[in-house]
Amino acid sequence: MAGELTVSIDAMGGDEGPSVVVAALARSVLRHPGVKFILHGDEAELKPLFEKRQALLERATIRHAPDRVRMEEKPSLALRRGRNSSMWRALEAVKNKEAQVAVSAGNTGALMAMSMFNLGTLEGISRPAIAALWPTKRGQSVVLDVGANVVVSAEQLVDFAVMGEAFARGILGLERPTVGILNIGTEDAKGNDAVKDAAHILRSNPTLPMEFCGFVEGDDIGEGTVDVVVTDGFTGNIALKTAEGTAKTVTHFLRSALMRSFFGRIGAFMASGALRALRRKLDPRAANGGIFLGLDGVVVKSHGGADALGFASALDMAIDMAKAGVVARIINDRRGVHLAVAEAAAS
Amino acid sequence: MAGELTVSIDAMGGDEGPSVVVAALARSVLRHPGVKFILHGDEAELKPLFEKRQALLERATIRHAPDRVRMEEKPSLALRRGRNSSMWRALEAVKNKEAQVAVSAGNTGALMAMSMFNLGTLEGISRPAIAALWPTKRGQSVVLDVGANVVVSAEQLVDFAVMGEAFARGILGLERPTVGILNIGTEDAKGNDAVKDAAHILRSNPTLPMEFCGFVEGDDIGEGTVDVVVTDGFTGNIALKTAEGTAKTVTHFLRSALMRSFFGRIGAFMASGALRALRRKLDPRAANGGIFLGLDGVVVKSHGGADALGFASALDMAIDMAKAGVVARIINDRRGVHLAVAEAAAS
Repeated sequence: MAGELTVSIDAMGGDEGPSVVVAALARSVLRHPGVKFILHGDEAELKPLFEKRQALLERATIRHAPDRVRMEEKPSLALRRGRNSSMWRALEAVKNKEAQVAVSAGNTGALMAMSMFNLGTLEGISRPAIAALWPTKRGQSVVLDVGANVVVSAEQLVDFAVMGEAFARGILGLERPTVGILNIGTEDAKGNDAVKDAAHILRSNPTLPMEFCGFVEGDDIGEGTVDVVVTDGFTGNIALKTAEGTAKTVTHFLRSALMRSFFGRIGAFMASGALRALRRKLDPRAANGGIFLGLDGVVVKSHGGADALGFASALDMAIDMAKAGVVARIINDRRGVHLAVAEAAAS
Repeated sequence: MAGELTVSIDAMGGDEGPSVVVAALARSVLRHPGVKFILHGDEAELKPLFEKRQALLERATIRHAPDRVRMEEKPSLALRRGRNSSMWRALEAVKNKEAQVAVSAGNTGALMAMSMFNLGTLEGISRPAIAALWPTKRGQSVVLDVGANVVVSAEQLVDFAVMGEAFARGILGLERPTVGILNIGTEDAKGNDAVKDAAHILRSNPTLPMEFCGFVEGDDIGEGTVDVVVTDGFTGNIALKTAEGTAKTVTHFLRSALMRSFFGRIGAFMASGALRALRRKLDPRAANGGIFLGLDGVVVKSHGGADALGFASALDMAIDMAKAGVVARIINDRRGVHLAVAEAAAS
């Protein structure tokens, strides 16, 4: 499998442009021997970046794309006028089976729209979810949806649970991941109809390869209470950004608390190695991919502001997902839910 | 006004019981000369707590209540069978004008149900919102609703904006608070219908005593981008608990990062004063009250696990709200919205 894998990259997405992408590629070829890469973008910008890295050309092909999707462009407009863009071409290469996975740091909405158009969604899925890896006390958890589906049905939340479980089994190596639905309390009667009905469906599907734990609350995410946290894209997006903001606020307070006193400043100096380790742990670049689940293919969105380290982890994620066969797992496990629901209804 | 103010306290709520409440009262009488207190609860438990604090009896009256609401009790059951509870009696004293404000650390749902029954909501408000003070880089912001209203209409979000603005003017001393609606992006087209319609209504009401800033995102809360953050109770509750969890996770990582190295341990020792200051800043006890807004009266919910310091800040909050006339401000400012909307519709 590793020998046949090709990664299709939108080299023009992201705030930092192709230099970051090529620097990430230089890391990725070392990490993943046997994997090939296709870079879509402006040849005139890309070629000079390869001049000092001639060895890369053995593993990576540059494909000229005359256009690019702007970060602030409306997804509907990008979809209409963006057929010559590096993003479109990156997805088209997956559609044409030249590559197995696509990675872009570009406009999330446009990437979602173009992915749906080029790759299609899995049968019965109207719109994919975006999953995020969340650093917790116990390691990391998968949280989805973090932004694609503003309003969801119970059935969609069930799909998110299955997609998250399949991802956690494939990527985190968990045999039977624990799954919880995000709610404002753990009692059965709490929450809106969608979360209550989804919990009911998951409880009546005990053969699924997951340990369904019912409802979890906001503070359970950071605790790592469950491996997979299921929520709608509105709540998930706000929870994710609130957590990012809180981490920033806490480190801001920490810095000013230390700088306020003489001993604090000395302490900060003595502890600087440990504080650097903390920054690495909290670094959003290390777990930086927004993973699209529910597509008939693998697409990973790198953070728009990612540097080479961040973009390289998005490439890692896409490659790992292809190797673990996450899409096939999702198809298989979703079949299990529908069967069980049909059986329950028939009995 | 200060001379006439009486605070009605549910002495049996909270995980810690009446000893914490009486210790908090001892702080509060010093802070608020002229304010009187009525404590509702089990006389046999309360009287011994006053024995070493005889001076308190000049300012505080004990009223025996034979029953108490349990923390895990269903609100509907508490409402039916709880008429002899300390919580009910605390609210009844406000209803009977013996006191102006009520404070309890008990069961939130029961307190909300009993508050609505005893005090009623303001005209046009179906269910009050719970507001929280949120520590930010720039100070603190008001976030509401953090748990009472799971599903909301645009009109309710507008009410939350006005209630938050009135609270911020009265309590934070801001002349024209900035207000934002929590959403998954700042563009007009983002989000569900409720947030979009609420933004439209607030934009067409420029005479309200607030600076409406449109949409804000999760990370804007910790940044302190706006003074008042408006959201539904589902999202707000999850955002609040996610932030609490993240703050805990970050400090957990910090501790283990420091303890991992020799210099880190020395640094932590040298910086211990500054780290203590950080803990105080992040301490949920200091801004611990859940404030019920939309009632025809002032009710503050103290955190169930609050200690004397935490319960004392809930008492501070209730007293400040009465002195600032927050309820009258809400009534007045809401009148402004309805007028402007009616005018806009007529023109």
